[in-house]
Amino acid sequence: MPYLRVAAAQLNLTVGDLEGNTARMLDAYDQAAAAGADLVAFPELAVTGYPPEDLLLRRAFVGQAQDALAKLAARTGRTAAIVGFPELDGALYNSAAVCAHGQVLGVYRKHLLPNYAVFDEERYFEPWPGDGPLFRIAGARVAVTVCEDAWSETGPIRTQAQSGAELVVNINASPYYAGRLGERERMLAERATDAGVPVLYVNLVGGQDELVFDGASMVIDATGAVLARAVQFEDALLVVDLLVPERKTSGPVLSEVEVCAVEDHDGTAVPAIAPALEPVPEVYEALVVGTRDYVRKNGFTEAVIGLSGGIDSALVAAIATDALGPENVVGVMMPSRFSSGGSVTDSEDLAANLGIRTLTIPIEPAHQAFLDMLTEPFAGLDPGLAEENVQARVRGTILMTLSNKLGWLVLTTGNKSEMAVGYATLYGDMAGGFAVVKDVPKLLVYALCRDRNARAGRVVIPTSIIDKPPSAELRPDQLDIDSLPAYEVLDPIIEGYVEDDKSIADLEAEAHDPETVRRVAALIDRNEYKRRQAPPGVRVSPKAFGKDRRLPITNRWPG
Amino acid sequence: MPYLRVAAAQLNLTVGDLEGNTARMLDAYDQAAAAGADLVAFPELAVTGYPPEDLLLRRAFVGQAQDALAKLAARTGRTAAIVGFPELDGALYNSAAVCAHGQVLGVYRKHLLPNYAVFDEERYFEPWPGDGPLFRIAGARVAVTVCEDAWSETGPIRTQAQSGAELVVNINASPYYAGRLGERERMLAERATDAGVPVLYVNLVGGQDELVFDGASMVIDATGAVLARAVQFEDALLVVDLLVPERKTSGPVLSEVEVCAVEDHDGTAVPAIAPALEPVPEVYEALVVGTRDYVRKNGFTEAVIGLSGGIDSALVAAIATDALGPENVVGVMMPSRFSSGGSVTDSEDLAANLGIRTLTIPIEPAHQAFLDMLTEPFAGLDPGLAEENVQARVRGTILMTLSNKLGWLVLTTGNKSEMAVGYATLYGDMAGGFAVVKDVPKLLVYALCRDRNARAGRVVIPTSIIDKPPSAELRPDQLDIDSLPAYEVLDPIIEGYVEDDKSIADLEAEAHDPETVRRVAALIDRNEYKRRQAPPGVRVSPKAFGKDRRLPITNRWPG
Repeated sequence: MPYLRVAAAQLNLTVGDLEGNTARMLDAYDQAAAAGADLVAFPELAVTGYPPEDLLLRRAFVGQAQDALAKLAARTGRTAAIVGFPELDGALYNSAAVCAHGQVLGVYRKHLLPNYAVFDEERYFEPWPGDGPLFRIAGARVAVTVCEDAWSETGPIRTQAQSGAELVVNINASPYYAGRLGERERMLAERATDAGVPVLYVNLVGGQDELVFDGASMVIDATGAVLARAVQFEDALLVVDLLVPERKTSGPVLSEVEVCAVEDHDGTAVPAIAPALEPVPEVYEALVVGTRDYVRKNGFTEAVIGLSGGIDSALVAAIATDALGPENVVGVMMPSRFSSGGSVTDSEDLAANLGIRTLTIPIEPAHQAFLDMLTEPFAGLDPGLAEENVQARVRGTILMTLSNKLGWLVLTTGNKSEMAVGYATLYGDMAGGFAVVKDVPKLLVYALCRDRNARAGRVVIPTSIIDKPPSAELRPDQLDIDSLPAYEVLDPIIEGYVEDDKSIADLEAEAHDPETVRRVAALIDRNEYKRRQAPPGVRVSPKAFGKDRRLPITNRWPG
Repeated sequence: MPYLRVAAAQLNLTVGDLEGNTARMLDAYDQAAAAGADLVAFPELAVTGYPPEDLLLRRAFVGQAQDALAKLAARTGRTAAIVGFPELDGALYNSAAVCAHGQVLGVYRKHLLPNYAVFDEERYFEPWPGDGPLFRIAGARVAVTVCEDAWSETGPIRTQAQSGAELVVNINASPYYAGRLGERERMLAERATDAGVPVLYVNLVGGQDELVFDGASMVIDATGAVLARAVQFEDALLVVDLLVPERKTSGPVLSEVEVCAVEDHDGTAVPAIAPALEPVPEVYEALVVGTRDYVRKNGFTEAVIGLSGGIDSALVAAIATDALGPENVVGVMMPSRFSSGGSVTDSEDLAANLGIRTLTIPIEPAHQAFLDMLTEPFAGLDPGLAEENVQARVRGTILMTLSNKLGWLVLTTGNKSEMAVGYATLYGDMAGGFAVVKDVPKLLVYALCRDRNARAGRVVIPTSIIDKPPSAELRPDQLDIDSLPAYEVLDPIIEGYVEDDKSIADLEAEAHDPETVRRVAALIDRNEYKRRQAPPGVRVSPKAFGKDRRLPITNRWPG
């Protein structure tokens, strides 16, 4: 019975950084080889980072990615490296190369291409309709699959198992959303038990624009049990000794590629299961990693946040501090004539608790200047939303000017509930480079703040910020509740309409108030134009605004 | 030999307006029936408008679209209506229903689903792998195909022709770009001659977010000649008498659906070929229609434009005036301390020539207020780009405040050259609802202005605006040429890098200056974050910024 030492190299790679990605992979390869691994699996499209999007339409990019793979393969020895890369051979394939002894010894091409949600793989790749080879690694027949291939019970794993595969390696770039790890484990357990073989699952980590990859690479045994799992959201090299029972071929005979011979291993690699994060801290960690990587991978060090005294900006400041360090975060207080006293003092407390710098720039001079400049065109008209938006736009301009001058990336603070119904000012509080909590509904904002305090064992986000009724403070005594339903009512309607694509009739049937449902649905539809101009932000739900949800702006369907 | 009277109903439909679209189609149906047509073809997905995007993921939407089709079918008589609709039957298909005598008599399902450029059809639809039926209409065997089906020489038309089809109807939602009409005619001529049968091609018209559909529905005879063509960009009902030679089946026998019997026709429908627009006026017309439909279909009547005295805002003002009428366009002059005298007087001349209203709001008060507010944080730093952007953002705020107060849609004025290299201020001159010329390179901006004047037979856009050297006027004596290569150098590099996906090496090999190529490519890549927050605008090139070009913001590939 072959006894394999398998490794999953869970790495934070960067889209387009062919050289950097290859260097990171070679580091991990050397570690795996030094640990005596028979094989080490890297994520899907590891060479390019994921998703490379329309870079894949550039022939020069694909050519250089293939060159990078060849360079990596040339550095391999006995330990087999399984490496995701874009393979141009007439058509373009999403492929996994099996490399050892200085060469690419064989290639597996992805069969099932996801083209839903955030995925556009049919835009770039041809699906491979035939079977792939099996790879003889240290005496075992190893099947390779790429991501989506594992999600279908009629997919390639079935054939591979029938053909005598003794281990399935599945390489992934599987983005996070809340609850995703459990779905993956259930799916892999099904595949492993159906096939009767263990599965080595390797996943990417790190943020890429809207997406964050959570890692949690794992080994599932042939009974469907999780044998080993790497930490979430961080680089890891998971090394596991695996007894691989010999199996007979009962199905089609696949071609076999000889990769490396059996060799004795030093010591043992004992499987360990890293604990999974609890639901709320898991979302928090996704937000931290997504923010850190967006900032750093785009060449920024410092970030700036407008602190309103409200809970959204407090949460974003906490996340940014955890992501970048307090020395790299600046909070700006920009009180107006309508700001409550607490808006500045609460923000000062928050900043002190986080240890971040602050600036205070009252907006009155510019605010009044705009009102004066517009007196003539607005003669005879009552003040209203337009004047409220001016204040938000003055603040947006201040933050962007600080950003332009001092190189700080502006983090915006709008949550998913606000983004949904358009309770935000375009070019005002929506102005910035990254919208940290745009996929976090308001009720979850509260939960994240409470949990952050609880984990710290002290008040980080001041209780007065958590307890005050939500207000934009753009006119005297304004409260969110004046314009919107209570968040306890609003959030479930948004979830149904946005994430679950329910209709107005569906939601009414769920005993939501019909008038409220209609109003919320109309607000969501009508504000598509605002969201289209919003900065990207971390996706943490099964359906985020952004490339996950592609609705026309011009749209007369009433829902 | 059957003699058919065929009609193409080229209509401006609206995404999501199931009721309105059906009503427009019934009007056209009644006209076609009154004209004695044997069949009338409507565009692809006519019931829903195109592209409905993620509305197709809503079951209620698809259900209501099918109901709308049934309602339309119920109103049909002898004249066959060929109607595009989304068909849910287990999977979702992009289908064409053939309706007559009050019923849907048969359905054809699209085989080839475009999933490139602006198209995402694999996201929504299943391709139909089998053959469709032929339809017996007034004695002729009629084959139906949907859009992309016609673009492959090995596509369904080959089989349909071998099976004895005597006429091919191809229903489309084919978006415009410069040169597209000629490509379509060449393709259709090939298909018609290969098949040896005439083709009736019907296309959508009108704007939908980034896309504009140009119509130009046509009949190609079996020799590949254009027999009739409808006008571009406008509603039309093209009615043509067509001699359809009987053909024998040489290939697979397809099922046949009886639709309607032969009937004598009154009079004759003489084919006419509407003249095609010349290249530059054609782009202009696309911009006019795209702008008009974005404004109107989103419920606006009036538009506002910041008039800088430069050529871009002059062109946008002319387009808006032609699109909406002079009574619905407002030009706002917002001079700063750095504005030239000409910036206001040239804009006044332009506004007088166009007959539009103007407002003048000098930005000095808010400009100075911001500088004062930022004195402390900027102490010791030289003024530069940040201070320049403040001026643009003050202007953006003024326009948006006018918009919020008075219900005017803000049209932005940045051209494709500026959008490419990021020579624009986010939340400043980029602030607005629709970016009319964002896909028009600067050199084409000049050509469009000259042509607009030439067609008017008088100076509409003042010569001084066309002749002055381009300048943002954000600091004393500033010229575009200080920051960017001359547009004669810049535009071809942008076209190569953006539209043709050429690499830096490719462009250097074309004898562009290597340092300039590198600089321009780096600017294009680095400014993806700005474009991601830009408003939509009319696509007039084969590759526009927007959903046509999906590049990661986080991207380390140097090009």
